[in-house]
Amino acid sequence: MRLFTSALLAAGASVATALVPAMASDTATQPKAASPIYGVTIPEGYRAWQLVAPAQEAAPLDELRAIVGNTTAIKAYQAGTLPFPDGTILVKLAWKHTQSPEFATASVPGAATTVQIMVKDSKRYAATGGWGFGRFVNGKPADQAQHETCWGCHQALVADRDYVFTRYAP
Amino acid sequence: MRLFTSALLAAGASVATALVPAMASDTATQPKAASPIYGVTIPEGYRAWQLVAPAQEAAPLDELRAIVGNTTAIKAYQAGTLPFPDGTILVKLAWKHTQSPEFATASVPGAATTVQIMVKDSKRYAATGGWGFGRFVNGKPADQAQHETCWGCHQALVADRDYVFTRYAP
Repeated sequence: MRLFTSALLAAGASVATALVPAMASDTATQPKAASPIYGVTIPEGYRAWQLVAPAQEAAPLDELRAIVGNTTAIKAYQAGTLPFPDGTILVKLAWKHTQSPEFATASVPGAATTVQIMVKDSKRYAATGGWGFGRFVNGKPADQAQHETCWGCHQALVADRDYVFTRYAP
Repeated sequence: MRLFTSALLAAGASVATALVPAMASDTATQPKAASPIYGVTIPEGYRAWQLVAPAQEAAPLDELRAIVGNTTAIKAYQAGTLPFPDGTILVKLAWKHTQSPEFATASVPGAATTVQIMVKDSKRYAATGGWGFGRFVNGKPADQAQHETCWGCHQALVADRDYVFTRYAP
């Protein structure tokens, strides 16, 4: 990748100029749904991000979950950096907790339920600990009432860990 | 990576000759523990590999788990390729299923328990469906008796999916 990046850099501004209009055009034709209050969108490529930890949520939600983070997030976790730096993005994927069809004692992901996102931007989200929140169902943001609940809970329960519940599972 | 690989190939046999003794020397000074029967070792960098799916295992093991795969594995999953190609590696990380200290309905990873590995090499492991197995506790391989149980169960229960239990969670 380093060689490839260098090649791109060496090619210089002409490449950048060629790429930017194409990206802007794609965004214009397929606008991304943003969460109420925070304007958080589903980040590109998050499904390939590194795992922070799995989790389980009991009934009534009854879910298996996995929290992944972008490179900034993972570096901060591994170095024990608190608060998380600006640019940190955490994504929680959730699925219905479902009996494995092949193995009696195992449970596995069923239908996908929500994708929930935290984005660190200490200036933009100064009023909510530096975090913006997004909760999506089938790619569509949940309503404003749901987004009004995010910050109060994170603030009340995990203020000592920069408002992040999930610990890195080694 | 492709450019880097091509550069290495272009440099030819002299590079290969130079690298092999160095690797052999590293291996000699820090020998990797290999699983009985299969000779499977814990792959470098697996903790950064992409998530295939989380899972839960009920009592008595009582674990939260996450299965990750190398690039070959993820490409095969996403393309629906069966059997998995040679070079596929799957790693299952497992932790004790533990009550979240901050959120009543959530469970989170506790102490790490096992790391379990499947490696596809259709020639080397022809007698076991093309798969080699490794089960590690604290980085040390489990005993031969435990490794004798792997293949029978995979063969009996998931022969129709190339002996792999875990499905990709979208």
